[in-house]
Amino acid sequence: MPTKPGPRIQEIHITPIAVVDPPLLNAAGLHAPYALRTILELVTDDGISGISEIPGNKAIDEALAQARERLIGKDVFQLAEIRQALINQFGTETAAQRGEAPWDQRKLVHIFSAVEVACLDIIGKVTSRPVVDLLGGKLRDRVPFAAYLFYKYEGAGGELGFDTDPAAQGWAAARQASALNPAEIVAQAKAMCVEFGFQSIKLKGGVFEPQQEVDAMLALWEAFGPDVPLRLDPNAIWTVETAIKYGRQLEPVLEYLEDPARGQLNMATVRKALAIPLATNMCTTSFEDIPSSIALGSEDIILSDHHFWGGLRSSMTLAGICETFGRGLSMHSNSHLGISLAAMVHLGAAIPQFSYALDTHYPWQSDEVIVGGRFRFEEGAVQVPQEPGLGVELDREALARLHQNYLDCGLTKRDDEIEMQKVQPGWTFQSVRW
Amino acid sequence: MPTKPGPRIQEIHITPIAVVDPPLLNAAGLHAPYALRTILELVTDDGISGISEIPGNKAIDEALAQARERLIGKDVFQLAEIRQALINQFGTETAAQRGEAPWDQRKLVHIFSAVEVACLDIIGKVTSRPVVDLLGGKLRDRVPFAAYLFYKYEGAGGELGFDTDPAAQGWAAARQASALNPAEIVAQAKAMCVEFGFQSIKLKGGVFEPQQEVDAMLALWEAFGPDVPLRLDPNAIWTVETAIKYGRQLEPVLEYLEDPARGQLNMATVRKALAIPLATNMCTTSFEDIPSSIALGSEDIILSDHHFWGGLRSSMTLAGICETFGRGLSMHSNSHLGISLAAMVHLGAAIPQFSYALDTHYPWQSDEVIVGGRFRFEEGAVQVPQEPGLGVELDREALARLHQNYLDCGLTKRDDEIEMQKVQPGWTFQSVRW
Repeated sequence: MPTKPGPRIQEIHITPIAVVDPPLLNAAGLHAPYALRTILELVTDDGISGISEIPGNKAIDEALAQARERLIGKDVFQLAEIRQALINQFGTETAAQRGEAPWDQRKLVHIFSAVEVACLDIIGKVTSRPVVDLLGGKLRDRVPFAAYLFYKYEGAGGELGFDTDPAAQGWAAARQASALNPAEIVAQAKAMCVEFGFQSIKLKGGVFEPQQEVDAMLALWEAFGPDVPLRLDPNAIWTVETAIKYGRQLEPVLEYLEDPARGQLNMATVRKALAIPLATNMCTTSFEDIPSSIALGSEDIILSDHHFWGGLRSSMTLAGICETFGRGLSMHSNSHLGISLAAMVHLGAAIPQFSYALDTHYPWQSDEVIVGGRFRFEEGAVQVPQEPGLGVELDREALARLHQNYLDCGLTKRDDEIEMQKVQPGWTFQSVRW
Repeated sequence: MPTKPGPRIQEIHITPIAVVDPPLLNAAGLHAPYALRTILELVTDDGISGISEIPGNKAIDEALAQARERLIGKDVFQLAEIRQALINQFGTETAAQRGEAPWDQRKLVHIFSAVEVACLDIIGKVTSRPVVDLLGGKLRDRVPFAAYLFYKYEGAGGELGFDTDPAAQGWAAARQASALNPAEIVAQAKAMCVEFGFQSIKLKGGVFEPQQEVDAMLALWEAFGPDVPLRLDPNAIWTVETAIKYGRQLEPVLEYLEDPARGQLNMATVRKALAIPLATNMCTTSFEDIPSSIALGSEDIILSDHHFWGGLRSSMTLAGICETFGRGLSMHSNSHLGISLAAMVHLGAAIPQFSYALDTHYPWQSDEVIVGGRFRFEEGAVQVPQEPGLGVELDREALARLHQNYLDCGLTKRDDEIEMQKVQPGWTFQSVRW
């Protein structure tokens, strides 16, 4: 008997939300009190809902909305056909459209990711399998993440700008504390590792002059010892000379150095000069970038991100490419909630090669949009959901509240430069600063 | 609610079969009157059967049998875990273990393929989806194949050696006719294209001295005109000089030249010298071979084969690699029946890039092991099965008969050299002949 077609997309709900975010510093400036995310919900003709979460951006939301006519009626199993329909509508995108910011500014990859993950959530539900089983099956029950440290000003983000709660304890207190020097970074790391059990540590750098950030890494090394892998991410803001000079100091203490310089040619030069692996989520960020990355030998480790690589199945293809060419693979993160975390965990559990704890901003967020509240970390790891699909469901009350935040806060895209200018008037983003 | 585990493998049936095969000539010698295949059937704890077909080889059958203990009890969705268990048992395999024959002699890739395809057949049945939908969905309803011409002696293979039926008509008559010169090759092509509707033509070369094979291609060009893409496959038996010399004559008439020389370095030299795309299923045949293929630029088109690349999902990864690096992708074939054909068709329907009709030996076989008999070709294409899983079921009576053929014929592996020596005493395989 021929099979019936799979469930068809009947409703598409695109909900931009704003979640409180602390004043985290990075090469592009300062996080606003709210980070934007967009929640996509697809509902099939038989009433099954699939969800996904992508970075919030009004232009991407509008493009998603424009794709509505092409998506309605599509069988959720026909992921390649859906992708082709989106390419037909929007054309292809070049790697250059990524932009110079630490986050990816392409539309199409975000839209692919949003639609694909929501479809996989539905497929998981109709086949009674967790999403990881749609990616080849689960190779680990728990997916380890790294502590993600940030230089930051005091406060924790929210309605009144960057709020503080004088009664906060433990990580809640550390989350709102300032961290502007090595001692404060070590304190932040300790509080985060106590709370979440992380066993690897990454510092978002590119904020202060290089020696100050190197000193922070050396202080972390002193504090945590050789058993805790350390990483520094200057977000491609260093020159080749700076990367080599400060990279040398870091050779004894780093697991890898992330995007020390801008562009594959510069990365390749730095890589030849240093005896530490280099990782990237800024210099090799699309399949189009891969051939020159391989030819130049510009990186050792690709930091995938299913939001930027066009979904979970594309990320599995990336994993296959990395395995084929002897490159490591780990995962990049922006501010996100539990739907993205669930997708990251399913992907992390399916990837054959797994040598590095994944990045996540999750500890910095306090809001949540899924039923049951926030994911828990045990020994720095998240249990792979065993429920059908992603294993998370929308908390519609939370969604409405966070959407109201979005409407109230007035932000329509991430712009860390504008936020930074509120603190340091006249500050401008420089793609290479030191 | 957490999902229950997927269906578990409870029974494993490995059945070697022998199917009648005509006296086809190739660089390695002559096809025996029987081609060997192995049929794998997995049965789950809830009684669902999944099947697959791989090239027959006693050593591979024995290895499959040795894997029994590791496979029993495995959840069919846990394909990555199953693959890892097989690697744990057998160790990894190098590309060199492929051997010098036109067909691949590695064990592990065959075992992966057999187990994975049978598991996907089961997954398709339990999720009510055709296998193509487990690979990202169907991009075409019909998958086009090429006519696959062979130099051959008279006869069509069978119990009495190479039988002939004087009453045969049409393709059945052409299938048993001799084809040893350009005129007979053109006659074979015409009969095959009339019967199956093929719209591309490949000649298996490497049999006669190069000018004779070039003349056959020029005769096909004369007979079929510029709208029918032509290919020649000398099976890597030419020197670089020969490949360039005869390749020049073929430039105006070929869609691509397949494995004109042996090894990636030689292929790269030929590729630089000729203005025709080169394809391979002998010089780049595993993921391990890919980096040097890319670095050298040794081929334009990879001829995948899910039996040799470790299954359908690995073949999709290969498709992603080819797309990423701007390489074409098509499909290689050995003598096979309908289970392999079904798997090839599901894969062919899922591959995003599809520029070349796939190879198949299928017209040369007359036996079948599936219910309903042999697949039909329309305009050279096979309709993608719409039933759950592969969409084919074992004909147990045919399986028993073909297994008896296997027991009776005494063959345990493919050896075209021994068969050739029956016709030309003292003939030996040479990896480079002209």
